[in-house]
Amino acid sequence: MSSNTGASATVATWSGRKPDFSDVLAAAKRIAPYAHVTPVLQSRSLDQLSGAQLHFKCENFQRVGAFKFRGACNAVWSLSDAEAAHGVVTHSSGNHGAALALAAQTRGIVAHVVVPEGAVKSKLAAIQAYGASLHVCAPNMAAREAMAAAVQERTGARLVHPFTDPAVIAGQGTAALELLGQVGALDLVITPVGGGGLVGGTALAVAGASASTRVLAAEPEGAADAFESLRRGTRVTDLVPHTVCDGLRGTIGEINFDLLRAHGVEVLLVSDAQALAAMRLVWERMKILIEPSCATVLAAVLRNRDRFAGQRIGLILSGGNVDLDALPGWA
Amino acid sequence: MSSNTGASATVATWSGRKPDFSDVLAAAKRIAPYAHVTPVLQSRSLDQLSGAQLHFKCENFQRVGAFKFRGACNAVWSLSDAEAAHGVVTHSSGNHGAALALAAQTRGIVAHVVVPEGAVKSKLAAIQAYGASLHVCAPNMAAREAMAAAVQERTGARLVHPFTDPAVIAGQGTAALELLGQVGALDLVITPVGGGGLVGGTALAVAGASASTRVLAAEPEGAADAFESLRRGTRVTDLVPHTVCDGLRGTIGEINFDLLRAHGVEVLLVSDAQALAAMRLVWERMKILIEPSCATVLAAVLRNRDRFAGQRIGLILSGGNVDLDALPGWA
Repeated sequence: MSSNTGASATVATWSGRKPDFSDVLAAAKRIAPYAHVTPVLQSRSLDQLSGAQLHFKCENFQRVGAFKFRGACNAVWSLSDAEAAHGVVTHSSGNHGAALALAAQTRGIVAHVVVPEGAVKSKLAAIQAYGASLHVCAPNMAAREAMAAAVQERTGARLVHPFTDPAVIAGQGTAALELLGQVGALDLVITPVGGGGLVGGTALAVAGASASTRVLAAEPEGAADAFESLRRGTRVTDLVPHTVCDGLRGTIGEINFDLLRAHGVEVLLVSDAQALAAMRLVWERMKILIEPSCATVLAAVLRNRDRFAGQRIGLILSGGNVDLDALPGWA
Repeated sequence: MSSNTGASATVATWSGRKPDFSDVLAAAKRIAPYAHVTPVLQSRSLDQLSGAQLHFKCENFQRVGAFKFRGACNAVWSLSDAEAAHGVVTHSSGNHGAALALAAQTRGIVAHVVVPEGAVKSKLAAIQAYGASLHVCAPNMAAREAMAAAVQERTGARLVHPFTDPAVIAGQGTAALELLGQVGALDLVITPVGGGGLVGGTALAVAGASASTRVLAAEPEGAADAFESLRRGTRVTDLVPHTVCDGLRGTIGEINFDLLRAHGVEVLLVSDAQALAAMRLVWERMKILIEPSCATVLAAVLRNRDRFAGQRIGLILSGGNVDLDALPGWA
């Protein structure tokens, strides 16, 4: 890859403002040289099973195997050259860590990734393979944040938060924007919700590009903080997640919660068993790999079959990074 | 599906003649209303690993999850209306059985599928879901052939052999024809070899469409009858297969062996461990499901890395019907 030769960034200045539709459009343009345009697949048999018309946006085929590359890439290429020269830093041993590492590589800058002791070795190897510097810390949030702050202090690197960074949110919205361009009008778009970067960006993209399309989010019953936050009208931050959907254990961010409310996003709960059964269906019928977190969107449609029958539904398949050494037991 | 309304067959008369390139072209036209045009995928990381430029023809996304639908569909739609009225019959509990069942359904005719006692229940359910009549017999080849003959006798159904039927061979060749149309000139095309329907049809297609492209076949060491047949110059039929690649346990057919020799197809052996490792690579890096038999093509390229480095290679990904309840141990 030498796509960065001669490229230069389109600087985005946030200074506390929230992302809007124009940021999603700018993100789409900014990441186009680096991100894949992912295919949209349909499945006759899953249409039959759901009674709806399902359009699967395959972000499992995105670079690093997840939509996370879109947001990380937008964040990295939103920096001025002077900012970028100091590199970027984040704390994530999952898809965002790998995504930021690769995004930094496309710009030829340093990525520092703070990871907890005991993180899955294959994930750390992937992050390192993209050229990032790993910083190992104790496995708790306070240690991770402290380590990230120390790295920032020492290097001047810019912190790119996995889901509250406005450039990340705008970048994640490009998947839905692309989907609408590929398949035209939809009755609804559904994404998983963890920290809320994807669903927040999706809400922005859909509101701007197709106002009549509703946005819904699927959440595991064992990590139902977004659902509870909407129900109570205030952000719930003290739930202890317990779900096989490891990508959705994060707590909804403040800016993300605001976006959910502003756009009237409804959260649908699914059980782990439903997510795993939906994952198996996608593997079997579509012959593509998706991770459990990603399967929540199909699980939500199947759990609410009567409600969604006959509708044209876009499902963001968020990622395909399954740990093949630890396949969960099938439901 | 009601694509069969008003459609009529283009009858192919074989009377002992072998299929040629014109039959592949006719097959492509005949099956176009029913078969998927499958995508061709590339993978940066597998290109790096192999040192070659790999074009994966995704027949795992074909209807019934395997290239077999092409041949079965061509066979069914090659029959005259009078012949078709009696239905079709085959003995196969695998992909060909399901493919013939669905192909018959597209024409609105009966498919009889003879299956051995003890066959995998999920596979039988799939065949029945496509509307075929199942006929259960003792689990040996003599019983299967006898049962198929009895069904033919009683119903007048046409036997469609999984790999020696010339219409089946011509149909399987349409995958490579389509691939060449999608990606242009290739240095070589590689397919798995079991009974030899796919590689036979591929040899015909490639010879006609791109004479400078070589055809190779990948075969498990534990079912090396095609390899041995070419080495000895005579068809070897007494090998007892022992391989995890369950789609490749069949013995190379006579007409198929002739095609291999006529087109100078070379067979490359791979171990089961190499096939499973290649399967895992495809799952991980490409996020698509392929079955072990299908992974032999990538395994063969990786085993012969130095030989193929720098070349443009087409790999026919033959199918994605993995038994998820019995995932093989990873190599």
